[in-house]
Amino acid sequence: MGIQGKNYIGYSLSAEGERTFQSYIPSKDRFLPEDFRCATQSEVSRAMALAENACDEYSSVSASKRADFLIAITEEITALGDELLERAHLETGLAIARLQGERARTINQLTQFAELLREGSWIEASIDTALPDRTPVAKPDIRKMLVPIGPVIIFGSSNFPFTYSVAGVDSGPALAAGNPIIVKAHSAHPGVSDLTAQAVVKAAKRTAMPDGVFSMLYDDGFEVGTALVKHPASKAVGFTGSFKGGMALYKLAQEREEPIAVFAEMGSVNPIVILPGYLKSNAEEFGKTLAASVTLGAGQFCTNPGLVFVTESEGLGVFEDSYQQEIENTASATMLTAGICKNYNKLKQEVFEQANVSELAISEKLSVGENQAQASIARVSGKSFIANPKLHEEVFGPFSLLIVCEDTEELLEAVSHLKGQLTATLMAQDEEISTYPGIVRKLSKISGRFILNGVPTGVEVCPSMHHGGPFPATADARFTSVGRHSILRFVRPQSYQGWPNSLLPNELKDSNPLGIYRLINNVLTRNQV
Amino acid sequence: MGIQGKNYIGYSLSAEGERTFQSYIPSKDRFLPEDFRCATQSEVSRAMALAENACDEYSSVSASKRADFLIAITEEITALGDELLERAHLETGLAIARLQGERARTINQLTQFAELLREGSWIEASIDTALPDRTPVAKPDIRKMLVPIGPVIIFGSSNFPFTYSVAGVDSGPALAAGNPIIVKAHSAHPGVSDLTAQAVVKAAKRTAMPDGVFSMLYDDGFEVGTALVKHPASKAVGFTGSFKGGMALYKLAQEREEPIAVFAEMGSVNPIVILPGYLKSNAEEFGKTLAASVTLGAGQFCTNPGLVFVTESEGLGVFEDSYQQEIENTASATMLTAGICKNYNKLKQEVFEQANVSELAISEKLSVGENQAQASIARVSGKSFIANPKLHEEVFGPFSLLIVCEDTEELLEAVSHLKGQLTATLMAQDEEISTYPGIVRKLSKISGRFILNGVPTGVEVCPSMHHGGPFPATADARFTSVGRHSILRFVRPQSYQGWPNSLLPNELKDSNPLGIYRLINNVLTRNQV
Repeated sequence: MGIQGKNYIGYSLSAEGERTFQSYIPSKDRFLPEDFRCATQSEVSRAMALAENACDEYSSVSASKRADFLIAITEEITALGDELLERAHLETGLAIARLQGERARTINQLTQFAELLREGSWIEASIDTALPDRTPVAKPDIRKMLVPIGPVIIFGSSNFPFTYSVAGVDSGPALAAGNPIIVKAHSAHPGVSDLTAQAVVKAAKRTAMPDGVFSMLYDDGFEVGTALVKHPASKAVGFTGSFKGGMALYKLAQEREEPIAVFAEMGSVNPIVILPGYLKSNAEEFGKTLAASVTLGAGQFCTNPGLVFVTESEGLGVFEDSYQQEIENTASATMLTAGICKNYNKLKQEVFEQANVSELAISEKLSVGENQAQASIARVSGKSFIANPKLHEEVFGPFSLLIVCEDTEELLEAVSHLKGQLTATLMAQDEEISTYPGIVRKLSKISGRFILNGVPTGVEVCPSMHHGGPFPATADARFTSVGRHSILRFVRPQSYQGWPNSLLPNELKDSNPLGIYRLINNVLTRNQV
Repeated sequence: MGIQGKNYIGYSLSAEGERTFQSYIPSKDRFLPEDFRCATQSEVSRAMALAENACDEYSSVSASKRADFLIAITEEITALGDELLERAHLETGLAIARLQGERARTINQLTQFAELLREGSWIEASIDTALPDRTPVAKPDIRKMLVPIGPVIIFGSSNFPFTYSVAGVDSGPALAAGNPIIVKAHSAHPGVSDLTAQAVVKAAKRTAMPDGVFSMLYDDGFEVGTALVKHPASKAVGFTGSFKGGMALYKLAQEREEPIAVFAEMGSVNPIVILPGYLKSNAEEFGKTLAASVTLGAGQFCTNPGLVFVTESEGLGVFEDSYQQEIENTASATMLTAGICKNYNKLKQEVFEQANVSELAISEKLSVGENQAQASIARVSGKSFIANPKLHEEVFGPFSLLIVCEDTEELLEAVSHLKGQLTATLMAQDEEISTYPGIVRKLSKISGRFILNGVPTGVEVCPSMHHGGPFPATADARFTSVGRHSILRFVRPQSYQGWPNSLLPNELKDSNPLGIYRLINNVLTRNQV
């Protein structure tokens, strides 16, 4: 039905407010014609009230019906076809092939949650049967499972218009767990958000979900997001973006009368440490691999390798030459927004202006279009890095800093200054790993994902993926935003004591009608009680 | 070796400071002779530095060795024999039989964690094997498990000198998970804490744990606790106590440069709702049962039933008479501290002074001793309860408010004012439950443990026990402080990408040397890869 530009409040469209904004096309530095209407405070209240009302009904929809809903979303997204891809290409400047991959990942994520719901064991059912004759006191019958928490607020991100947006890594698990969601659409891609919202609404209607299970609101400022986080009915927040943005939401959520969890992914420099043995044997090849990782998607990934540590050892020259050559041969690329491009140029300039920082490589091929980012690699000594905290910070975009340490002792010291990260990567020959236990321990301690001989870009959607990490990479290192365990952000355990079988949820009935794994008297089994 | 009165900083005793306090005997309103030395800021720093240093070594101690450590603690606690019980009796006023039960529970808890470690599957190992030939990109080998987070700060509570103190529900899982702990001893029972600390230190030495895995500091004020929570090396906080105390720690933790999790259990009124059918059939019997629950341990349990809702229906008179008679026949009991006793009398007096609140029963038998609490039951109409938020608050001690509603409609409205609770209890005949879906939903939504036809006191230590609940009952409804899952408070997931088998932890090796359950390519199995 084309882009509506109105707020999606449950099954209704709403355009109460006066304030509007338009889609910006970064590659052309101009705007598309449609107006998107910023939500008013009363629209926020209506969306929240609908969500709160929908909680009871939605939480009692069976897991298999919720799975149908998720699959219906994937079908409706697929049905949007090229219109969705082309709009995303216009609004983000990302290449169509990259967007096709992202759409496939989004559909894969939702499908994985549907499968998780259908299998059912994720609910962590646990049963302890009664011992009425136990002395000195009888043991009651106690059973436990995970239950939904209530309305979840989700902020779309700028860099993944599908995967971290309206029907992405937060929406999928929040809906799968049985919670209504209210999405604040990212203002950098309102058209993609609008089309995706239509897909979600269609899927919800088609599978008879309650009105209010999904709402999406527009705003090109902070008012709507602030009001959503502060609303008493909100029970959790999902966010991916800058440290500043994440911490602002975190503080808002903590200052509520009832504090709520904010799952904020806030940026990471994803350090790579290259040990001498590895450098010696792989200098030329890894220079190329690294350049590809730094420039992938114009460097606009949360797992972009922003700091690379090496020592002055055999192979360094070959590595630097290869890295430099590859970067210089990389074409510039359109960034997501004018603001991101401006900020990229400013921050990288600031790094180049620091003492003892030199330029290793700048991409020389300029692509056609506006808001172009040139990949840029800076170089600094270990000593200067250690002395200057400014150099430890993230520069969002195709930028990376090469830190050349005198020896592995200085390398260890340099690495000891690193804070929490989504990923840390060690490039090493197997036999040299045990030689540097301090470096290994430090990288392990600060990282959510610890990679050996790879690059951090590329986040596999699988159960073993932990996409999260110690603060300040995320607000809560105990939870991942990718993979099946991300659903644990949006549930809480609840015990039922003394309830008869007929009144218990299916997950906890003696007969195990869902055939799920359960912990019965502390033994994991799919048997009946 | 008797009570030392000094701070336990790893394996050393330390008494740098000048400030001291003594054990108070509540039943006699006098002090014991030993001085306990409040820790200084430099002692706090030393304990934290030792803990931070111990992290690497302790986290690499095998799970089975950590299990030995926990069992050694239980043995050393047992070896303290009657000295520990008698000291606890003096310091807390709790009866010896009650303390024997609590000691048994403490030993049971630690033993359960030892068993959890020996079985090993709690680590949630997950393995996704590589697909090097996958297109368009190869799938890397990714494996994940839970890892320790670092030093945990634990606050002893006043009401459980063993179970929620030096070697209690926070210490057990924090140590089991591989984290050093720093305990702030509760000033209400420093002698018990001192003896227990000796048991932990002996056990740690005997099982060759690193120095710094355990420290315990004294303070009768807030300085030491504040400094511990603010210390940059602290990674989580465990606390059980008042709402005010819990929120103060919570705010401190959020204001840090790196915010950390505070697992605060902060009080609960544990509502009981009696439906008309149940009341009619069980009036006399439940009056007695309820009185016993309200007065258990002088009402000093976090699961004490502080609000009881009934309707004006058949059996009410019989119930009230039975309840009243049982309360009046209950002897008064010594409270834990003079401050708690004073606060109990003040708060219950304030309730009795509210409009339309009458006295239903006051215990008339006075026991010998100081700081005696008389069990007291107040009565109010549903209307007055709804209109007066003051009546919704906890009165810590053997007090409960009976709310008599005109009908079940008013009952639903009264219940709708309840906030998050550790427990909620429904007294109902099976067939009447479906008649009141609104009440059932509301009680379910606000409670961590939802009890049918029982009383909330008595927290079974078993896997299905969720001892936690929505805010303000606890600071984080996603975690329990009792049972095996309480260990999840003190770990974080970490992924390993591309590591060879020889360098992976045993939990993640192909051969599954520990024989644990693992999720291999999304299938739960104890098989090898």
